Amino acid sequence: VKTLTLFIPEIREILASDREEALKDLLSGLHPVEIARGFEELTLEEQLRIFRVLEDEVAIPLFEELDFELQSQLLASLSMEKAIHVLDEMSPDERADLFKRLSPERVKRLFSLMKKEEVEDVVRLLKYREDTAGGIMTTDFVALPVEMEVDEAIGYIRNQVKLENISYVYVVDDKGGLKGVVSLRRLITSRKGATLGEIMDPDPIKADVGMDQEEVAQMVATYDLLAIPVVEDGGLVGVVTVDDCIDILSEEATEDIQKMSGSGYVKDIWRKPAAKVARMRVPWIVICLFGEMISAFIVKLFSLTLERVIALAFFIPVIMAMGGNVGTQSSAMITRGFATGEVDFNKVGKILFKEIMIGFFMGLMSGVMVGILAPILHLGDYMLGMVVGASTFIALTVATFVGALSPITLRRVGVDPAMASGPFVTTVVDITGLLIYFALATIFLRYLR
Amino acid sequence: VKTLTLFIPEIREILASDREEALKDLLSGLHPVEIARGFEELTLEEQLRIFRVLEDEVAIPLFEELDFELQSQLLASLSMEKAIHVLDEMSPDERADLFKRLSPERVKRLFSLMKKEEVEDVVRLLKYREDTAGGIMTTDFVALPVEMEVDEAIGYIRNQVKLENISYVYVVDDKGGLKGVVSLRRLITSRKGATLGEIMDPDPIKADVGMDQEEVAQMVATYDLLAIPVVEDGGLVGVVTVDDCIDILSEEATEDIQKMSGSGYVKDIWRKPAAKVARMRVPWIVICLFGEMISAFIVKLFSLTLERVIALAFFIPVIMAMGGNVGTQSSAMITRGFATGEVDFNKVGKILFKEIMIGFFMGLMSGVMVGILAPILHLGDYMLGMVVGASTFIALTVATFVGALSPITLRRVGVDPAMASGPFVTTVVDITGLLIYFALATIFLRYLR
Repeated sequence: VKTLTLFIPEIREILASDREEALKDLLSGLHPVEIARGFEELTLEEQLRIFRVLEDEVAIPLFEELDFELQSQLLASLSMEKAIHVLDEMSPDERADLFKRLSPERVKRLFSLMKKEEVEDVVRLLKYREDTAGGIMTTDFVALPVEMEVDEAIGYIRNQVKLENISYVYVVDDKGGLKGVVSLRRLITSRKGATLGEIMDPDPIKADVGMDQEEVAQMVATYDLLAIPVVEDGGLVGVVTVDDCIDILSEEATEDIQKMSGSGYVKDIWRKPAAKVARMRVPWIVICLFGEMISAFIVKLFSLTLERVIALAFFIPVIMAMGGNVGTQSSAMITRGFATGEVDFNKVGKILFKEIMIGFFMGLMSGVMVGILAPILHLGDYMLGMVVGASTFIALTVATFVGALSPITLRRVGVDPAMASGPFVTTVVDITGLLIYFALATIFLRYLR
Repeated sequence: VKTLTLFIPEIREILASDREEALKDLLSGLHPVEIARGFEELTLEEQLRIFRVLEDEVAIPLFEELDFELQSQLLASLSMEKAIHVLDEMSPDERADLFKRLSPERVKRLFSLMKKEEVEDVVRLLKYREDTAGGIMTTDFVALPVEMEVDEAIGYIRNQVKLENISYVYVVDDKGGLKGVVSLRRLITSRKGATLGEIMDPDPIKADVGMDQEEVAQMVATYDLLAIPVVEDGGLVGVVTVDDCIDILSEEATEDIQKMSGSGYVKDIWRKPAAKVARMRVPWIVICLFGEMISAFIVKLFSLTLERVIALAFFIPVIMAMGGNVGTQSSAMITRGFATGEVDFNKVGKILFKEIMIGFFMGLMSGVMVGILAPILHLGDYMLGMVVGASTFIALTVATFVGALSPITLRRVGVDPAMASGPFVTTVVDITGLLIYFALATIFLRYLR
């Protein structure tokens, strides 16, 4: 992907010598998405001069790609006439998102200058929660009556200059109720006299306006759709397009990864200051800190055992690290399985059993290896090797169980399974692992050197 | 999402009483994707009977949704005529993927019965590597000459019954070279006498046939495309559609999560037997085991210190767990940043600096807390608190640095940054953390009780 960043020196040179045509030439080789990447590195003055030479078909998508802060700043600096023009031309979902972030005074001022129907459109979209189908849908769609004929429908679409990416025509009754869907491809290959009612799919896949955005995106992915109609009380109120669904799914994966690593979640983390990122990561570290104080307490509890056989301390890292790692392996796999729909409650029993089998196998193998390596490290103390090996075996089996059960339990009680994060699982597994280790060591204490 | 699984008892009942119409009715309420989910739970006999009553427009997409094993089994059990029909009708990319997995004898046999042009199509697609644009593209696309007029183009599309999901018409010269692209929407809104050359976008975004599939998918996502043309030596050879790109991006995120948790990666992990999953997870556990043997060695190295102050052992879990957790936080965030393109080498210095700042802040905070809590746990030993607190502070700062630097280094040398997995980072961080802790303790040994 090319970005504007690469061309900034050249742009500055052109702007300095005031060669508008050269600027146009340079920018015409770039896609709006490419111009947006690096646009924030220009001064406001430079941004405005670039905006002035761009045609609507580039300027509007460019504006839509920018951050809200930049959008808001540009809007304030453009001539009022140009600003209103941009707002009128923007796609309804992007525009509503922007208005959500403007001050009430600015909203009022802009509303007084915008076209009445566009204002109504913004107001309509503002009432939906941001992470629902209603919050991500656009109101740019084609809805036509059941009895309309194919050539009329094509004629209608011809006149809708504002509709850029339409893939489907939605068929509605006279109250706006969704009756069916016709793909654009089907429309142009049907005979001209056929009515939409005859050629439509009468049972279209649709999303309710309050449906969670991730569920909507997952539906679009599952059914290979280019767009999904959104209904409210049976009436068609908007459309969610596949490009927005890709962004949602990608963002969801990022969110899961950040949560699973105990980093908390905030959108656009790379633009946030260090203090903010640290603040989000701290809660899990504090939970881990208090949890590991319990671990410390357990070791202290067995300090007499430890004093007798100081070598027991050597293998604390082995038991802890291996347990923590197999536990996070299990929790990560199951959490992702929930996100992609590959794991559901019908299969939970089978999956838990499988994880325990895996833990048993890995525990056995690791236990044997540790049992052999420990006496090598510590002067042929075979009994110590037995205790460390057996503890590793039990701790790893328990760890996979804890790692697997945590996201399943969270999901069951309606909490995001990604909260069964690394820090949480490792802390629980550390406590149980150390308990098993020192209990076994104390039982076999008299055989240890 | 509804699935066939819910209807299996009902289907069995209908099949037992041989009511074909009732079966058709039941299935007509389900989308092919829904029928595919749970289809493998039916017996082969039941599957075949269902296949027999389905129309092509359901049977073909259903077949395409199934696993390769199931596809191959069904293909062998259907009448030869029906099998060939299915193969002829399948979308070219799905078909080529299936042929890759059939035995050479079966391929030869099927080729001898299939239409010549379909055989050629399969052979053409088989030569591309599976994880490249060529390996995921379909050859179902519309390519028309520059001088063709709009109404001729629409007439052409009307006659292409096999093309289901076309969003764009590609414009080519007489050698098949890609000259431009026209969206279906633009085609039907242009005046009839205009030529494709006049209305096309002459600089379409395209992928080279050898481009990595993730890069292709990321391009489609970035530019909000519904499909991307694939070229080989300038000539148009196929198209990658957005639905396949969604699957690739989702699979990529799953792969990253599994690799980051040290689980290795294999596709469709939920269908693999426990032994296979364990085998993939074992390598990281073994690496961790040997790494932690180094940790054990370090503790042993300081066993004189430890013997003098047994309480030092209590805080081994605290230092290890907290270091491991902040380290994996850093590596997970940066690895995901590389995957989504939010992190690149222009920003690496800035990001590393920011991570170290975060580590410094979190280390300071945790160090102070541990410094206060340690004497509470261990009888007011403030000097021990100082040592543990200072070690926590240094260890956490180092841990963020190790966690951040690992994926960056891997990426720099051309290795998947997700290989900087939890087990790897935690092991390195454990070793360094323990070294810092015991070195500090030994230096201040005479002040400790």
